[in-house]
Amino acid sequence: MTGVLSERLVTIGEDDLEALARGAAVLGTGGGGDPYIGRLLATQALREHGPVALVAPEDLPGDATVFPVAMMGAPTVMVEKTPSTERIGATVAALAEYLGVTPTHIACIEAGGVNSTFPLVAAAQLGLPLVDGDGMGRAFPELQMVLPTLSGIACAPMSIADEKGNVGVLTTVDNHAAEALARSLTITMGCAAIISNYVMSGAQAREALVPGTLSLCARIGHRVERARAEHGDAVAAVAAELGGRVLHTGKVTDVARRTVTGFARGTAIVSGGAGELTLEFQNEHLMAVRDGVVQVTTPDLIIVLDTDTGEPVTTEALRFGHRVTVLAAPTDERWHSPGGIALVGPRYFGYDTDPVRFDARDLE
Amino acid sequence: MTGVLSERLVTIGEDDLEALARGAAVLGTGGGGDPYIGRLLATQALREHGPVALVAPEDLPGDATVFPVAMMGAPTVMVEKTPSTERIGATVAALAEYLGVTPTHIACIEAGGVNSTFPLVAAAQLGLPLVDGDGMGRAFPELQMVLPTLSGIACAPMSIADEKGNVGVLTTVDNHAAEALARSLTITMGCAAIISNYVMSGAQAREALVPGTLSLCARIGHRVERARAEHGDAVAAVAAELGGRVLHTGKVTDVARRTVTGFARGTAIVSGGAGELTLEFQNEHLMAVRDGVVQVTTPDLIIVLDTDTGEPVTTEALRFGHRVTVLAAPTDERWHSPGGIALVGPRYFGYDTDPVRFDARDLE
Repeated sequence: MTGVLSERLVTIGEDDLEALARGAAVLGTGGGGDPYIGRLLATQALREHGPVALVAPEDLPGDATVFPVAMMGAPTVMVEKTPSTERIGATVAALAEYLGVTPTHIACIEAGGVNSTFPLVAAAQLGLPLVDGDGMGRAFPELQMVLPTLSGIACAPMSIADEKGNVGVLTTVDNHAAEALARSLTITMGCAAIISNYVMSGAQAREALVPGTLSLCARIGHRVERARAEHGDAVAAVAAELGGRVLHTGKVTDVARRTVTGFARGTAIVSGGAGELTLEFQNEHLMAVRDGVVQVTTPDLIIVLDTDTGEPVTTEALRFGHRVTVLAAPTDERWHSPGGIALVGPRYFGYDTDPVRFDARDLE
Repeated sequence: MTGVLSERLVTIGEDDLEALARGAAVLGTGGGGDPYIGRLLATQALREHGPVALVAPEDLPGDATVFPVAMMGAPTVMVEKTPSTERIGATVAALAEYLGVTPTHIACIEAGGVNSTFPLVAAAQLGLPLVDGDGMGRAFPELQMVLPTLSGIACAPMSIADEKGNVGVLTTVDNHAAEALARSLTITMGCAAIISNYVMSGAQAREALVPGTLSLCARIGHRVERARAEHGDAVAAVAAELGGRVLHTGKVTDVARRTVTGFARGTAIVSGGAGELTLEFQNEHLMAVRDGVVQVTTPDLIIVLDTDTGEPVTTEALRFGHRVTVLAAPTDERWHSPGGIALVGPRYFGYDTDPVRFDARDLE
């Protein structure tokens, strides 16, 4: 890890959005949505309502009422049916009214190009501070795949809304049921919905969230910018910020995609000097294999960057001929607990392998 | 019409259920669920909680708060995942709590083997009177297909629940959106869900419901029983009660089913002395055609009865070799308004024909 962990944002304004969205897309590990769309949504809200105050999880009052908000579904669809900032705020308000509580803070449940900036819109519109943290420290495709699930926090009651004005409130027997029911509503809503879920107290947020995510995103984004301005190595800057290392550098020589049970599953091959690296993805990059040997798997981070610019590449943007560098980096330690592996380990995604952890000893 | 219209039930007890469920399956016109399942559900509730009081719509106080309750999805599935009476009551309670109102009456939204008896369970469990009426005077497959839609009454806010304890409350921009969203939840809930919707005042219920449906169901059921006990013509008794007539008598010689967009669509051919009658169905019987000439279409009633016993035959129970009689009967006049035809006319179901009304002049 580098020494810049202490650089923390205290507010997020329009000027921070580019770096924030780029860094969030890095943590999105191929999923979590296009940073450009994420930035567009947030820019409008911040221009209208001004900067949003950031609060570190450890500074939350124990009795704070924290409302995460996110986009569910296919971020690519969001461009064509962008919700108004009012609808995003209304989704939080619908859940608050159902619960009979007043939100004191907004939070991110996922780091990703869209889902790190989306909560900014809600915070700006509702005039609430935003928690500098998130529920994963990365992106994962299903609602139950968050650290709050490991802390016993319920996903539902949750609200779900479309851009037209349809709103649902779900109460479920467990977080897997919340995922199943919200997923079917999302599909009927046109494959993109606004959700608010995992309402938690300040005390719960301190325990269950990954602290500092938004500051980390901004730092990553700024380092990429600086490296580029100074004609330095943007990829190395990202690796350093995350305590990660380069797995492979090369050219994308094959991408196979198939849509299975609503997810974009696929395989990409990156060929280069050190042979071939095969990436298995399902919205996010979940496994990297070289010569039949699994190098690293979910829950650790597998990040694909444009080799020249350090720009994160989402799984849907992977193209033949693209020159990319694949990084691996450690995830939040809680994901490596038995409960974490049951929730997001490679077997859950259908890969027949035990988890292979990012190995920091290779970092010399 | 016969002279027994004045025979009205004032309570429904266990002894009424057989006749009620059978008559309801007649009005179900092939859909609305198996009367046996409907009876099973209600028997348990009435045994536990005692008889349910019936209130005619015209006797409802204007400020009554009427909660319809129904089963959505495939009634065949209900057998394997029968909800407890508590869950049915809880579905009403969830909507009442969301709306912040106290239900004073329960109502049926659809006449049919399951949906005429299902509200009895809720009424018994919650200790509330049941309105002697329904929202269609028959069965139709989609949520927006009720007379309350024509009266401008909103389907949502509505509640939807499964037998496990998952509950959703939906607020929608219109009744078609309620159908689409609730349908997707129903499918994820295992193809059968409990719903409460179209909450209305007593004044609205007086205007929007079809009065006397449950009494009519019981009368139909009792006439079939009596005819059988007296070795009379049960089919003629049903026709007389509904002011209908026999379209065709014969043997089922062909049944073709296909599942299209979640509905059981199909065609059945009944061959007999007077040639062939073709029935087109989609959960309910929607069109009867003889020699290429459309005899009658939705919204009028097309009812298939066992020729010997007068027992109603649901579309899923149609079998080769079954000796059946097809009746046609008039529907509530409001269905023949332009708005009614737009909602449930043959073209909505994909049949390329104008509506053909049941013709009472053939009744000699």
